[in-house]
Amino acid sequence: MSSIFTKIINGEIPSYKIAEDENFIAILDAFPLVKGHVLVIPKKEVDKIFDLDKETYLGLMNFAYEIAPAIEKAIPCLRVGIAVIGLEVPHVHVHLVPMNTMNDINFSQPKIKVSPEEMTEIATKIKSSL
Amino acid sequence: MSSIFTKIINGEIPSYKIAEDENFIAILDAFPLVKGHVLVIPKKEVDKIFDLDKETYLGLMNFAYEIAPAIEKAIPCLRVGIAVIGLEVPHVHVHLVPMNTMNDINFSQPKIKVSPEEMTEIATKIKSSL
Repeated sequence: MSSIFTKIINGEIPSYKIAEDENFIAILDAFPLVKGHVLVIPKKEVDKIFDLDKETYLGLMNFAYEIAPAIEKAIPCLRVGIAVIGLEVPHVHVHLVPMNTMNDINFSQPKIKVSPEEMTEIATKIKSSL
Repeated sequence: MSSIFTKIINGEIPSYKIAEDENFIAILDAFPLVKGHVLVIPKKEVDKIFDLDKETYLGLMNFAYEIAPAIEKAIPCLRVGIAVIGLEVPHVHVHLVPMNTMNDINFSQPKIKVSPEEMTEIATKIKSSL
């Protein structure tokens, strides 16, 4: 069965898209730790990041490098942090999290609720900073 | 003033070294979340990861890609997670954390104590898996 991210990539499930190219996609995390929490995902469905072939892995990291400054520009924060955990969805995803405190990237914190209107607004703001 | 990592790179402060090349170093985190918690660090002293020039950033990520499989081989774990936070030491460092649960990469958890003998043993084990 396809992962939730493959379904998003295929347009079967809606998402707040930030950027996309042939191999990668960046979307707002639907269950954000903070406003502006982005996921960068390879279209290739692989479970563990270090199991990606080197070209795809470095391409993914390069894609994150293109997106992160736009997040930092669009969302008030001290810096953009990175987390790759992956114990929940077996499809590589890199979390890019605009941080003001260490706790902003603490995955044991409760997720925040953001209205669809505000998610759209945040996605638009990040996209326009690309 | 030099960062603690620059002092480690210059050999002014001891560390449990895993690997080193011209531009990067990998050491055991002296304040580990779990046994086998590694830091991958560029020798260039830059505060924020996305402020690294692209070549150094991708070189750093490539260095992590070389080290992570050795951690996964040496330390019993489900996978190796990645975290870049950086609010404490203003010198880029990528955490590579062998995880069995989500909490293993939770930086609000208390750090564990590992004896110097065991740190040496862990470093040797990871190095020999490279």
